[in-house]
Amino acid sequence: MRIGVLGAGQLGQMLALSGYPLGNRFTFFDTTGSPSADIGETLCDPSGATLQDFLAQVDVVTYEFEHLPLPLVQQVAAHKPLYPSAEALRVCQNREAEKSLFDALNIPVADYRLVDSAEQLADACRELMQQGAAAVVAKSITEGYDGKGQAVLRDPAEAQQAWQQIGHARLIVESFVNFVREVSIIAVRGREGDVVFYPLAENHHAEGILRYSLAPLPDVSASVQQQAEGYIHRLLDSLNYVGVLTLELFQQADGTLLANEMAPRVHNSGHWTQNGAVTSQFENHLRAVQGLPLGATDAIAPTCMVNIIGTLGDVKGLLEIEGAHLHLYGKSERPGRKLGHLNLVAEDLPTLLERVEQASRLLPGAPAPQFSFVPS
Amino acid sequence: MRIGVLGAGQLGQMLALSGYPLGNRFTFFDTTGSPSADIGETLCDPSGATLQDFLAQVDVVTYEFEHLPLPLVQQVAAHKPLYPSAEALRVCQNREAEKSLFDALNIPVADYRLVDSAEQLADACRELMQQGAAAVVAKSITEGYDGKGQAVLRDPAEAQQAWQQIGHARLIVESFVNFVREVSIIAVRGREGDVVFYPLAENHHAEGILRYSLAPLPDVSASVQQQAEGYIHRLLDSLNYVGVLTLELFQQADGTLLANEMAPRVHNSGHWTQNGAVTSQFENHLRAVQGLPLGATDAIAPTCMVNIIGTLGDVKGLLEIEGAHLHLYGKSERPGRKLGHLNLVAEDLPTLLERVEQASRLLPGAPAPQFSFVPS
Repeated sequence: MRIGVLGAGQLGQMLALSGYPLGNRFTFFDTTGSPSADIGETLCDPSGATLQDFLAQVDVVTYEFEHLPLPLVQQVAAHKPLYPSAEALRVCQNREAEKSLFDALNIPVADYRLVDSAEQLADACRELMQQGAAAVVAKSITEGYDGKGQAVLRDPAEAQQAWQQIGHARLIVESFVNFVREVSIIAVRGREGDVVFYPLAENHHAEGILRYSLAPLPDVSASVQQQAEGYIHRLLDSLNYVGVLTLELFQQADGTLLANEMAPRVHNSGHWTQNGAVTSQFENHLRAVQGLPLGATDAIAPTCMVNIIGTLGDVKGLLEIEGAHLHLYGKSERPGRKLGHLNLVAEDLPTLLERVEQASRLLPGAPAPQFSFVPS
Repeated sequence: MRIGVLGAGQLGQMLALSGYPLGNRFTFFDTTGSPSADIGETLCDPSGATLQDFLAQVDVVTYEFEHLPLPLVQQVAAHKPLYPSAEALRVCQNREAEKSLFDALNIPVADYRLVDSAEQLADACRELMQQGAAAVVAKSITEGYDGKGQAVLRDPAEAQQAWQQIGHARLIVESFVNFVREVSIIAVRGREGDVVFYPLAENHHAEGILRYSLAPLPDVSASVQQQAEGYIHRLLDSLNYVGVLTLELFQQADGTLLANEMAPRVHNSGHWTQNGAVTSQFENHLRAVQGLPLGATDAIAPTCMVNIIGTLGDVKGLLEIEGAHLHLYGKSERPGRKLGHLNLVAEDLPTLLERVEQASRLLPGAPAPQFSFVPS
């Protein structure tokens, strides 16, 4: 089966590497002008390739990138099976639609307001702070990605400046959640509605970029895992979703979870599954979109994904670490760019944490790894 | 680093799939006219591509196929780093040179004779049978592959017919070994002479084609594993070998091992390492040829590789088996053709054997799996 992928970055490359063994071949449609998948065939919209060329080559279409023009995606869906659906993409592209869906499904989120002016932003900020928020986060409704188009406000007086800085006509303003940690759950829904869940991962960001994801977690009770599974299951069913969905969550001091946002695709916080789970998120996404049985999602061993950002660092040194699995994307070095990641696997958690320390020392600019379950 | 590969079949494809995450890209040089790697770039000699085109594109060269013209390989070595060396290939291409090396390194083999005529073949057969062989196997010195160019003789009177059937000017005649099972060891030697060994696998053939490889084995003592490691280590060092080497062995009733033959490449009996070992044979071969540290070879769990021969069978059914990892090569169905394999992984051996049974029932023509350590 020939798989068409909208987007042509590293997620597409890793999908293709997982799909070859399933007998799949890949055609990418790039809308950015800087594709990096470098496997199978890539058609570039900015270089004059047409959507018709792309559609003529593929049996089923998926995407690895959510910042796609919705009309393009709807046009794809009119001609070929598309998973996840254009409707799922529409909801995930729009924070207002996303939050409404969370509300409708009784998935708890931080308090929020929608605002259309600097004055409304100041009012929302005041109101949420009166209700106890130490600060608020204002985000554009659309096209948020990796911390762009966001501002933190600690005083309603900052509204005017934040409004201008973000520069969008409609914002969502959320109470800043005083969370213990950020976690994510990845789930996969097949064409027949069958669903599998990966264990929760703990995620650490620096400067808006994911740095570490660790799974499975030693201090997540079965009930918290079930809470996360329940939330994502409702989302999957309500969207009649097919493929991998990622839900980012905040875990609060009392252990409960608040939904942050979702991504309708394989996700950086799921890269640990390539070496740490029976079936990777990439393979399961492909199994789902072509109607194959889903693979087991059990963790094999404690695993930590370490992102390689900006510079490659000491690659030989990284490969010398026991249980290290390198995943480079074939991109050139550039500040803040995701160049690859390292999956570290170990027989137990203390050994894993030593290996993560070892790796972080070999990666220039990597923050010191600190996980919430490790005594400081 | 751009890797050049001589040969462009499924082994090359799997090398490339392992090499992308190391940041490698691949160019294949095909001499057969029927390449199937279908990843990276393939230059076809029969379609007019030149060796110069190939060499201009690559940083280092390896091969995935040993039936290559030696002068071509020597020409490659004159222009680019080639691993394993042309000398290693020469020895592996010629049963006489191979057996001489085994003899020189005190690696035990079945009794054998070299013959240049039907009369000498009859004499050798008589002599070996007088020394106790129940039968002998005559093989051409060169280009033996998957049981082709071979004949079994149970009587010296069959010499004339066997000679004509094989149709080569020089044969090797070996005592038929009354072995308990066929096993293989795969080892990897880096550019600095560092060596790692995978656990022995038990191999089952039908009609000259590998069907099952299972590893690690529950009934191999540390001393037998060490015996195999000692043999292959001597071979690696004596050839100043870089990359993956496979040594096929017969295990006799007393537990000891006799060398059968070696292959200077990643090997079908090592495919289990893709899902059953910390680092696959493919990744370790690539680490070796580009001077990177070798990865751990430990088995993760009991694993069995099941070849998919001729027809694809019930692919959905295969994917429904727990712990099943499918590896299709993207080839069309044809009797006797290797179309893919399935790696089955399980937490314990009885569970693994159940899954192998389950898989074999879904694969038309697959022989019933029977392993030597299972009571019949």
